[in-house]
Amino acid sequence: MPGSQTTRREFIRTTGASLAAASLAATAAEGALQQPPAPPARPFGYAIVGIGSLAESDILPAFAVTRHARLTGLVSGDLDKAKQVAAQYGVPERGIYSYDTFDRIADNPDIDAVYIVLPNNLHAEYTIRAHKAGKHVLVEKPMANTVAECESMMAAAAEAKRELMVAYRLRYEPFTQEMIRLGRERELGAIRALGCEAGFRIGNPNQWRLSKSAAGGGSMMDIGIYAVNAARYLSGEEPVEVMATESTDRNDPRFKEVEDTIHFHMRFPSGVIASCISSYNVMLNRYRVYADRGSYEMEPAWNRTGLRMRVLRGSTVEHRHLPQRNHFALMMDHLAESVANGTTPLTDGRDGLNDLRVIEAVYESARTGRPVPLA
Amino acid sequence: MPGSQTTRREFIRTTGASLAAASLAATAAEGALQQPPAPPARPFGYAIVGIGSLAESDILPAFAVTRHARLTGLVSGDLDKAKQVAAQYGVPERGIYSYDTFDRIADNPDIDAVYIVLPNNLHAEYTIRAHKAGKHVLVEKPMANTVAECESMMAAAAEAKRELMVAYRLRYEPFTQEMIRLGRERELGAIRALGCEAGFRIGNPNQWRLSKSAAGGGSMMDIGIYAVNAARYLSGEEPVEVMATESTDRNDPRFKEVEDTIHFHMRFPSGVIASCISSYNVMLNRYRVYADRGSYEMEPAWNRTGLRMRVLRGSTVEHRHLPQRNHFALMMDHLAESVANGTTPLTDGRDGLNDLRVIEAVYESARTGRPVPLA
Repeated sequence: MPGSQTTRREFIRTTGASLAAASLAATAAEGALQQPPAPPARPFGYAIVGIGSLAESDILPAFAVTRHARLTGLVSGDLDKAKQVAAQYGVPERGIYSYDTFDRIADNPDIDAVYIVLPNNLHAEYTIRAHKAGKHVLVEKPMANTVAECESMMAAAAEAKRELMVAYRLRYEPFTQEMIRLGRERELGAIRALGCEAGFRIGNPNQWRLSKSAAGGGSMMDIGIYAVNAARYLSGEEPVEVMATESTDRNDPRFKEVEDTIHFHMRFPSGVIASCISSYNVMLNRYRVYADRGSYEMEPAWNRTGLRMRVLRGSTVEHRHLPQRNHFALMMDHLAESVANGTTPLTDGRDGLNDLRVIEAVYESARTGRPVPLA
Repeated sequence: MPGSQTTRREFIRTTGASLAAASLAATAAEGALQQPPAPPARPFGYAIVGIGSLAESDILPAFAVTRHARLTGLVSGDLDKAKQVAAQYGVPERGIYSYDTFDRIADNPDIDAVYIVLPNNLHAEYTIRAHKAGKHVLVEKPMANTVAECESMMAAAAEAKRELMVAYRLRYEPFTQEMIRLGRERELGAIRALGCEAGFRIGNPNQWRLSKSAAGGGSMMDIGIYAVNAARYLSGEEPVEVMATESTDRNDPRFKEVEDTIHFHMRFPSGVIASCISSYNVMLNRYRVYADRGSYEMEPAWNRTGLRMRVLRGSTVEHRHLPQRNHFALMMDHLAESVANGTTPLTDGRDGLNDLRVIEAVYESARTGRPVPLA
């Protein structure tokens, strides 16, 4: 467990990287690089693994605005669909794989990385197989279903000498970076408390997100993880204790296997506590940082577009307008640049693992009714 | 402990009374009674006990806009100050008392009630003495320092056959009543979660509010109690469990005796959980109710003027504008009317006691690290 020194180091690394990403965002806006961070010699090729709704609605279209990344592969259990999408996005026939032929990506030099958009229980397996095939990995959140899986993924990345990055897209867009900057530079004084709330009303009871084996858990794994991640990056600290209270109606057909709502506290070394809520039954879409001279918040906080930021001081409310960027494009470019520069991605395996550690502690606290230390 | 039936009954009583108060507010606006609830035959006389900053800034000036209440007495340890205030507000010499002569209010027919604005540890003593003197009592929040004191106060009121009301001023103003109505009528669907945050940055380390013996505790007793009270009236339920995480820097001269910040959860019989924060170190001034079809909030929530309400549905934010009333005048008139009508005040001793039960449970949970049931 990091002491306050490690925490400080991590914070500096984190925010340094944030600034780099902010600079990227700025240059993307201008369409030209002012301080070129050694762009990749050729476009960085991604294979998308799993063509579900997120891939179709957001990830595939994002390649239209990436600067370094291009779509060079598709992995799907539905080859007809894969061919259709390939035609739409200009992926050659040789870039199409099924899950059976997945490992042959090793032989495809156009694929530098895979972006894994599969159900959570498949993240570890496909990450490790991709690393064994010599590819870098961008994996959707949650990184995996357990801390143990995260560790095995990190070991595979280290052995393959390939990057492993978790798709925390918000870390790459301007609002989040501004929120982090406000805290790091203490623009409103020291941070005293945090409130992070993430939830939505989930529908179809038969989807994989409501299966314990596929999703690893309920709202915490899918949406509460945004609150966990935000509390960590906003405070710039790693939590030392977690305490949780759960409310799940087990008679609701959606919640036969996984949790609905959990209210939890994360205690940080500085004494700051984050009050968080995760829910599959109500829309929760904001976070706020409370500091000495005011507070600052995002609402909506977790959306892919249309984020809004407010700074509250005394009775004044200031809306801060920043560019709305394509989170997925920024994120995919970040991995491309990290590889080109030989640097570790901002949201690396350690970041994903740390969230899973918190989530496992939240589950334990909700079950035992005790605070759970994070050693 | 109330089962769901009791809870429902309490909710109905509560909201019925709220509507009555809302109607009062409306009629006050028009300057005429439409459905006269048997107004007092003569103005209802109050003696203010304790002429501190709250009395001077808010309570005494409020008599200018009361409809049924008038100022007929002053009780103070500083007779010069009392005489000066008496002259300013037209209180006759015979209405001035010291703490030594306090019990003689029994002989003053112009004093119907006392409004106790003393440090918390004196609430029980002066309430009981006032009841013994045959007077009704309006007592500042917190009602007292302990549940046991609250019980002795209620017993004194019952024995004297006099009303005992706690000065929860927000229950008498239009915004709070509208927030309660939205929940009761399920205007945005069922309530799923609550967030209530109350705090400010306290100054002078030598004030009585930072003395354990005088204040009974720290931020929870003074400001966190707003969050507790709001979670109860917004949900319309009584909590069945409390869980708390405290953060207090005992090296801070302000917090040698009492707590600074506590994050706590209140679990209600319906399954709804309220995430609350109480602090003496940061400004926290809002609450939000999360329901199926949207959320509604007050921010600022606890101010004496300038309250603001927002209703959030999808991406739309609606500001609701309601009349800004004098909370103290509405509250003092309410006791006058309750006495005239022989009805129990909305924020009676039971209401004050229930908050103290929650606060004691919060302290116990913070100390033991366990959820504390409220039986």
